[in-house]
Parts: sequence; structure tokens; C-alpha cells
Amino acid sequence: MEVIPVRGLAEVKPGKDLGALIVAALRRGRLSLKRGDVVVVKQKAVSKAEGRLVRLADVVPGARAERLAKSQGKDPRLVELILRESVRVVRAGHGVIITETRHGFICANSGVDQSNVGRGVAALLPVDSDRSAREIRATLEKASGTRLAVVVTDTFGRPWRLGQTDVAIGCSGIDPLVRYAGKRDKFGYTLRVTQPAVVDEIAGAAELVLGKLGGTPVAIVRGASYSRGDTGVRPLVMPRARDLFR
Amino acid sequence: MEVIPVRGLAEVKPGKDLGALIVAALRRGRLSLKRGDVVVVKQKAVSKAEGRLVRLADVVPGARAERLAKSQGKDPRLVELILRESVRVVRAGHGVIITETRHGFICANSGVDQSNVGRGVAALLPVDSDRSAREIRATLEKASGTRLAVVVTDTFGRPWRLGQTDVAIGCSGIDPLVRYAGKRDKFGYTLRVTQPAVVDEIAGAAELVLGKLGGTPVAIVRGASYSRGDTGVRPLVMPRARDLFR
Repeated sequence: MEVIPVRGLAEVKPGKDLGALIVAALRRGRLSLKRGDVVVVKQKAVSKAEGRLVRLADVVPGARAERLAKSQGKDPRLVELILRESVRVVRAGHGVIITETRHGFICANSGVDQSNVGRGVAALLPVDSDRSAREIRATLEKASGTRLAVVVTDTFGRPWRLGQTDVAIGCSGIDPLVRYAGKRDKFGYTLRVTQPAVVDEIAGAAELVLGKLGGTPVAIVRGASYSRGDTGVRPLVMPRARDLFR
Repeated sequence: MEVIPVRGLAEVKPGKDLGALIVAALRRGRLSLKRGDVVVVKQKAVSKAEGRLVRLADVVPGARAERLAKSQGKDPRLVELILRESVRVVRAGHGVIITETRHGFICANSGVDQSNVGRGVAALLPVDSDRSAREIRATLEKASGTRLAVVVTDTFGRPWRLGQTDVAIGCSGIDPLVRYAGKRDKFGYTLRVTQPAVVDEIAGAAELVLGKLGGTPVAIVRGASYSRGDTGVRPLVMPRARDLFR
């Protein structure tokens, strides 16, 4: 398996066709996409292209945001955005606000983030990051003439473990899980619950070559084993009834 | 970055020198290690080599294991092992027992697992998986004459997200985190909490080429960006005081 950063992407601005920018960067870098390649795109680039940017100066925080901002030592305007993007606050403490987003993701700050977007600006998650992945994939498949998958990634923390890993918040053309349930190991033992979240592992693999300083938001993962699928990331969201940690 | 499965590893049996088996497999596969390569080894192979295998027929469950096994529909002998390997049960429900292991990992079943070890046998996590990584690294560095890192991985579930990813349970020669705190993005915004858990992303990248059916427990990750370090995985364990989800 190879993981290849795609360098030289033009500055992503609201309204730009991100798929077309990636095609141009690939051409400039003399990279061609091959059948089955997974193109990984960081959320920040997607959010910028889709205009999901808000000037904090334009945000008027409500009473709830003011209270939560005070208790967690945060900018009330940022907390207002975090609350608007969430369906529920899961935990707040130590200056961290963990929410459930409208997509069903549980993450810090509803994914609202101020890095790599410019001073006084916050980026929100894409409204529908599976749709974002689908649109980018359509553009890339048309330009390359071959079947691909696209994964949109963001950086999430984890309970109990320090540090963050990149995970998938949208995907297209790939089954997010590999389903081993019912398969047998070489001793005849039947695997029951094993289903690797391959899109999350692909997201993390891409992060290893992209880093966090914003220069390169796109990578190609070539040679990963996955199944085709068109569910998006929905199957990764744990149903409330099965969740031991809500 | 390349991720290369190491095929042809001999059957790993208790008492075998796993590092030496990997050296032999590399030679047979005509693979040579390069400076900075990260060699990823699945926990099951390490546990087997270190004799961390228990016959369920030899386990006498105590009263607590019997009760918990009944409530979660599990084999009481397996639950006895899970309890012995844990310092505390974090949650139990829906047939899942989440514990904190002696290493400080919070995971299902204390990492005790019956796949790929043979019928009626359970594998326990290595006693000190950083030490396991260190020993394998010493053997591989001696044989290859170059500086390497080693990551020992296991498959963990996540709260709120279905599917599992491979994560690091031991490492040597690599700082488990990349520390961006205090660095600035191109807009001058200072990153505050960003520290990717690179060893976990490396673990996941290796899983993508190894799969779960047990045939190939070793991969080389070449070209990942990381810092040298000798802390082991300890910095990944979230201190109890900072944890919002205990």
C-alpha cells in the first residue's frame, strides 16, 4: 500500500470546485489516479470550498453560550457556533466541550475549528460530508476515467487516550467497514464482532503524510483492501441503544 | 509512505524469539529494513511468543466472574481471565465488558481474545508491551544494522463509533505523539492541543494490509514522519484527572 501526498493544491476559497482543484494539482504533480485509489481530503479544504466559514465578529452569542463559554474559558462566539452545530452537549470540562453533531458524530467543539482558516474566522463541518465526498468523487472519476473512492477526514480526540487521530466524516465509493462476522480463522474459530473501520484507518494513514500545518490537504491511498459501497459513513455512527458511553 | 506486509512468518509458538522469526521472514521475502522503518507487529503474535496463552479448561471462575458472565452471556472462565487482567470494570452491557487493564488501556475484555490461537485457548495481552517492542527492535536493529522503530498493535473498539481500529499497545524508538502545540499555521494561528497519535495511525495503516484472519501479523511502514522517542505508549494513556469519560 502506498500513501502519496498531493502537493500544489491551489488556495481553496468559498465557491471553488474542490474536485477540479484536485484534478489540476494532480496534473501539475504528474500524478495519475489508478483504479481503486482512495482519495483522502481533509475537512478544512472541503469546508472552505463549501463556504462553511463564519466570521466570529458576526456571531451574537446567546445566554447559554455565554454561560458555557465562561465555565470552560472559551470565546462565547465560538461556543455559540459549537451549540448551533450540535444536537446535544455530551460533556463539558477541563476547557473541552464534547458535543453530538447533526451528523451523529461525537467530537470536541462540534468540529468547529479556527486553524488554517485565517484570523477571526471559524470553519464549520460540511453540512453533509458524504455528499461532499460523492461530489469530489464524481469530478475525479470523470477526469481520470476510472473507479475511485473518496474519504473526507477530520481530526478527533478519543476518550481515555491522549492525542488525536484523523477519522472519516464522509465517504463515497467505499464500504466504511470490513465485515468479518461469521468468517473463521485458521483454527476454525468464528469471528463474531470483528469489523475494522477501514475508512478511519485510511484517514489516519493519510494524516501521516499530510500533517497539521495546512499546506497539503489531499492524499492518495493506493492498494488498500476495501469493498465498494455507497452508504457513506452512516454505518460508523453507533446507534444510541448500543452505546455504553452516552 | 509505503506499507508492506511481511509474509511467510513461521508459526509463532511460546518461547520462540519473535524478533528472530521476523528477521528470517524478511530474508525469505528478500525484504531489507531501511533506516527509520517502523515495524508493526500484532499483539497476538507477541502474546503467543511470550506464552501469554491460557487453556480455558484450566480456569476456575470465581463468584464475581460467574455473575458477570451470566449477565453478559459469556463463558465464565473467559470472564475470570478478563477480571484477572483488569484493574476495574468500566462498563458492562449488551454482552460487552469494558475494562481498564493493568497497562491503563480501556478496552473490551481486557484485550483477552480467542481468535487465531486455537480452540479452547485465550490469549492475554503482553505483560509489558513496550518491553516487547523494545526487545523485538533490539533484535531487528542488530540484524539490519540500522535504526528502527517497533509498534505492537491490538484491535480496539471506540465509544460512539462502530467498527474497530488497530491502535498501539506498545512502542519503542518512536514518540507516540507529534507535538504541534505552540506551532503556527500559515495564517499565524497558534495550534494549542494538536498532537496526532502517530503510533495509532501507523497501527491502523498496517491493519489495512494485514487483515484479521491471522496469516500475516507483521508489516513495515516506511516513510512515515515521526520523532524518535523512548517513552513507550505511556503518554497515550489519559490521566484520570483529565478524563471526562471514566
